[in-house]
Amino acid sequence: MDRKPQPLRETHVLLGHGSGGKMSAELVQSVFLPAFANPTPAALNDQAVITLEGARLAFTTDSFVVSPPFFPGGDIGHLAVNGTVNDLVMGGARPCCLSASFIIEEGFPVADLRRVVQSMAAAAEEAGVQIVTGDTKVVERGAADGLYITTAGVGVIPAGRELGPDRVRPGDVILCSGSIGDHGVAVMALRSGLDFGVPIESDTAALGSLVEAMLAAGGAAIHAMRDPTRGGVAASLNEWAQAAGVQILLEEAAVPVREEVRAVCELLGLDPLNVANEGKLLAAVAPEAADAVLSAMRAHPLGRQAAAVGEVRAGNAGTVFIRTQVGGTRPVEYPSGEQLPRIC
Amino acid sequence: MDRKPQPLRETHVLLGHGSGGKMSAELVQSVFLPAFANPTPAALNDQAVITLEGARLAFTTDSFVVSPPFFPGGDIGHLAVNGTVNDLVMGGARPCCLSASFIIEEGFPVADLRRVVQSMAAAAEEAGVQIVTGDTKVVERGAADGLYITTAGVGVIPAGRELGPDRVRPGDVILCSGSIGDHGVAVMALRSGLDFGVPIESDTAALGSLVEAMLAAGGAAIHAMRDPTRGGVAASLNEWAQAAGVQILLEEAAVPVREEVRAVCELLGLDPLNVANEGKLLAAVAPEAADAVLSAMRAHPLGRQAAAVGEVRAGNAGTVFIRTQVGGTRPVEYPSGEQLPRIC
Repeated sequence: MDRKPQPLRETHVLLGHGSGGKMSAELVQSVFLPAFANPTPAALNDQAVITLEGARLAFTTDSFVVSPPFFPGGDIGHLAVNGTVNDLVMGGARPCCLSASFIIEEGFPVADLRRVVQSMAAAAEEAGVQIVTGDTKVVERGAADGLYITTAGVGVIPAGRELGPDRVRPGDVILCSGSIGDHGVAVMALRSGLDFGVPIESDTAALGSLVEAMLAAGGAAIHAMRDPTRGGVAASLNEWAQAAGVQILLEEAAVPVREEVRAVCELLGLDPLNVANEGKLLAAVAPEAADAVLSAMRAHPLGRQAAAVGEVRAGNAGTVFIRTQVGGTRPVEYPSGEQLPRIC
Repeated sequence: MDRKPQPLRETHVLLGHGSGGKMSAELVQSVFLPAFANPTPAALNDQAVITLEGARLAFTTDSFVVSPPFFPGGDIGHLAVNGTVNDLVMGGARPCCLSASFIIEEGFPVADLRRVVQSMAAAAEEAGVQIVTGDTKVVERGAADGLYITTAGVGVIPAGRELGPDRVRPGDVILCSGSIGDHGVAVMALRSGLDFGVPIESDTAALGSLVEAMLAAGGAAIHAMRDPTRGGVAASLNEWAQAAGVQILLEEAAVPVREEVRAVCELLGLDPLNVANEGKLLAAVAPEAADAVLSAMRAHPLGRQAAAVGEVRAGNAGTVFIRTQVGGTRPVEYPSGEQLPRIC
């Protein structure tokens, strides 16, 4: 992604600045990066790598403001743990510990808070991390909407692991660990009051064990991994295309989308490629290792529906295209603004 | 502090649960600690110590919700950096890097955001830390009040440094680095529209260099340090008294309080001992080293008004008293509820 400071058109922050798409990137590039200029180029990206006492550590943070806080398949607490765990593991780190800070609106039910905290504890145990420190602030009624949680995480990157968007190269195969759009559609369907009999469930999950299985199978042939959260697959792949100066071509027929997710997307006018996932990953893998990594993914409970969904090409740097099922090709834009506010 | 799980009387979260006093402790003990039970007993305390690849790291987080976000002497950004830096250095750690996560209300002026971010960058540079990773969420109008910032921080604890509330022991001298109550009163005076001609300024400051100077002078004779933020000196000393099973006796005449701070406290019915500080520290120091540490503090710009303000005694475990200027003695209670919401 282009990191040059640039003026921001808007004088006030808009919902789109939190979209995870183009407007988010503009806010970060215009306001945050010029001020926080420092030697970790991934600043304000999904995770930073720091070297401390000889160890390579990954360090990351995320705030969670999802509305409503409870939804089919998960809740804000589950999301807060898994989201930060996933940011760590996408860089090849083994997660070690998390912090959790709560901003609570006065009047929030203690029973709901307990439920969220239990959910965080369960998610942490499943992911093999500990929540070791925290903070609680309470604001008056109307100064927040229920509960916001910010988690930060620290992990250790084993020697020899080098993963990053800039390592994506022409020829790489793009693997996707399963059906896309489930989380965002689960929350949007709930908010819209859509009822399909069977609720669409969020895919919230910690991806550490899947990543370890993939690295065991593919090693250094895995060039980059990313969990496509806000902005969805479209945002993640556009960031890779820009960071690596490559073109990415997706095969629509190969991208796994559940029937009911596709139906809701059509009803709400959404493109599943732009919708947030909370338990899926994309990987760019050298072609000679792609089959082995795909097999390892399919052998893992979180990757049973994994698929090769595209490939990386030289030329047309910084763009993403999709070959549609009817044979045409259309660009996959970097999502511009906020289609799905408060989705995570 | 007593860590036994216990039922919570309240069914809904109240402002007092964010006070940093007794109700905060009850919420933590009842809701968070039972779920996040783990081997770091300081969980949800000011910082956790973790051992990674042989290094002892300190890890901490805090959310900042101060209202208004700009106040004499500082702003929410300055506070967010210094607050997390100070939590690290109170445990003897050398701060290394911070994360910063922003929850922004739609409509917040971009110019104000820039001002906050610049202030964070300046504070980080002064404290010698880098802001290496972050996140931004935007919520719709009315779902937050302007801007909330959550910082987390990682630091390295040099070998041999062992500081903690449980190390406070009878005979220790209690040192205070300067005038108390400045931050809380600066914010409250602003909110109340009180005008004294000269504004009362927040004391927001990073205390790392002061701590290093103290440790150079006192070494292992410094048993504990704490920055008395929410809940003020009263909360910090009560927590020490409970953690160490000791009694602490303060000398009112020795506690530095600025005239104008005392005046505002009287007007607003506050006890300066309960008011938040953001650039002061308390230390419990073995008596033979107290003079040397005090001299080192006074030689530092952030400790010029440092004073010995009390002593630790055996017996009457878990209590704090103050000898008043007229010769009587009264208990200094652990603050119970929220006197000063959104002070940090």
